Amino acid sequence: MEYRIGIDMGGTFIKAGLVDESYRILYKDKVATAATFLEVCDQMAALASGLAERAGLTIADIPFVGVGTPGSTVSETGRLAYAMNVNWVDVPLQEELSKRIPTKVRICNDANCAAIGETIAGGGKGCRNVLLITLGTGVGGGIIMDGKLFTGGDGMGVELGHTPLVLGGLRCTCGIIGCFEAYASVTGLIRQTKEMMEKNPDSCMHEWVREHGPVNGKTAYDCAQKGDKAALQVCDQYETYVAAGVGGMINIFRPELVLIGGGISAQGEYLLQPIREKLPDYVFASKVIGVPPVKAATLGNAAGTIGAAYLDRMI
Amino acid sequence: MEYRIGIDMGGTFIKAGLVDESYRILYKDKVATAATFLEVCDQMAALASGLAERAGLTIADIPFVGVGTPGSTVSETGRLAYAMNVNWVDVPLQEELSKRIPTKVRICNDANCAAIGETIAGGGKGCRNVLLITLGTGVGGGIIMDGKLFTGGDGMGVELGHTPLVLGGLRCTCGIIGCFEAYASVTGLIRQTKEMMEKNPDSCMHEWVREHGPVNGKTAYDCAQKGDKAALQVCDQYETYVAAGVGGMINIFRPELVLIGGGISAQGEYLLQPIREKLPDYVFASKVIGVPPVKAATLGNAAGTIGAAYLDRMI
Repeated sequence: MEYRIGIDMGGTFIKAGLVDESYRILYKDKVATAATFLEVCDQMAALASGLAERAGLTIADIPFVGVGTPGSTVSETGRLAYAMNVNWVDVPLQEELSKRIPTKVRICNDANCAAIGETIAGGGKGCRNVLLITLGTGVGGGIIMDGKLFTGGDGMGVELGHTPLVLGGLRCTCGIIGCFEAYASVTGLIRQTKEMMEKNPDSCMHEWVREHGPVNGKTAYDCAQKGDKAALQVCDQYETYVAAGVGGMINIFRPELVLIGGGISAQGEYLLQPIREKLPDYVFASKVIGVPPVKAATLGNAAGTIGAAYLDRMI
Repeated sequence: MEYRIGIDMGGTFIKAGLVDESYRILYKDKVATAATFLEVCDQMAALASGLAERAGLTIADIPFVGVGTPGSTVSETGRLAYAMNVNWVDVPLQEELSKRIPTKVRICNDANCAAIGETIAGGGKGCRNVLLITLGTGVGGGIIMDGKLFTGGDGMGVELGHTPLVLGGLRCTCGIIGCFEAYASVTGLIRQTKEMMEKNPDSCMHEWVREHGPVNGKTAYDCAQKGDKAALQVCDQYETYVAAGVGGMINIFRPELVLIGGGISAQGEYLLQPIREKLPDYVFASKVIGVPPVKAATLGNAAGTIGAAYLDRMI
């Protein structure tokens, strides 16, 4: 049995897992993300050797350590060109990790790792052309085309959250005005929920907040399920944003399957069925050439770790 | 010397050219597009053998005939899945042509042929990652990634004109609301020009029309060059539409070069320079990872014919 290690770096935590050939995470560990680049490299190396040890192995027994990071990675050089949320610019991540981890190490964008994980072991198993969209704090995702990760001409593409949706609309955290992410992220949904609550003092969303605390991505969906009109409107508008954005991506990539992941995908069919109903309006020639199926991603947070551990299979 | 034939089918005319190894069109011919699918196949075969004859050859001497058609072609089957403007659905174009033309025949989407032509012999010569956007009656284009045509998972992707730009905006000819094409096509520019003229009875664009006839894609650009305020506004807004749409495509594809073709590209630097200035606002992390250069396509209408003749090199 071969064991691999996948590391999923976030702005808050670095998570790592020891993954077996059946794509199960046997051991996992995490640590709060340190402040500097080199400290983070040390942390990743410590996580990897700790996991190997727990399996009664050394790193030399592990044939591959894959690392998913936020930001734009360049496959050929192993450099992280730019990671907005930790503010790293052009750092030699793969090189520094290789100094600390005595086995094969590769890095990749975290959302791309999730797309690899979902395609190898999750909702996209058996498919060769998969579009994963993750609706989380931001909007990310990845594209598998003909069994390989697609990352564009210089490897820094597929910024799916940063494509136009509403020209002249809201400014995205990336600075661009009107991005898909500004509307289809949980952050966007929370803003849309709050705006609707202000206009509708009688909505049961206000009661929800008194019971459950501050507005989050569930507020509108929970209340919509109780028939609250304002909440239903929030969900409907949000699903239109998602469908329009995903439709545009289908028109570019024509995947055989669309997977929706991220926090909001926990809504399951309450989210997916309306998106399926709206999608034909945004897919080119949908009546003639069809619309790919839309399903929920199945691995949750494990997708990034599993995908990182096997990222060399798809790049 | 090897000679190939490229055929560029449009809704109005079918154009064909005999192309040499230096990508020059030595002989060309055209015919008004017939009404039915099989008639069109006959027309294409006649054009091809006529061109061979003019070069003192027979079709058997020509190693390859490539055909660019509007609509979505499927490379593996050689079928034309859907062509909106001639209303053909799932026709066996390559098979019917092969019955009539006794040499290797392949078909491809016309905008993709233009992208191949521009990359092999035009503005993208020497590049391996090129985005071509054609701003014509509609908005089309093609993507060359790592020296190969990119067409998405089922070969019917890269409908670059049919990606979202203005959610809830104008309905595109394809039926989708808010498409890039509805705003960035010549048709869109003409509509924007007319709207501005209505609001500005003093604009010299009215005089332009009295002199030159009905509003077209040049009206606003001609008058803007004379300093007409309303015309300048039209051009500025139009260039914003183009920049926002192209920016989103850069964020997905990260090409090393963007080529702008189609009728409006005749404006040259009057169009390109403002787009270059606006693009950083729509390119993800533009200050850090940069914005690819934007140039005019150089082959004009010949791009489709030359690209068709050599399409097997890039698919």
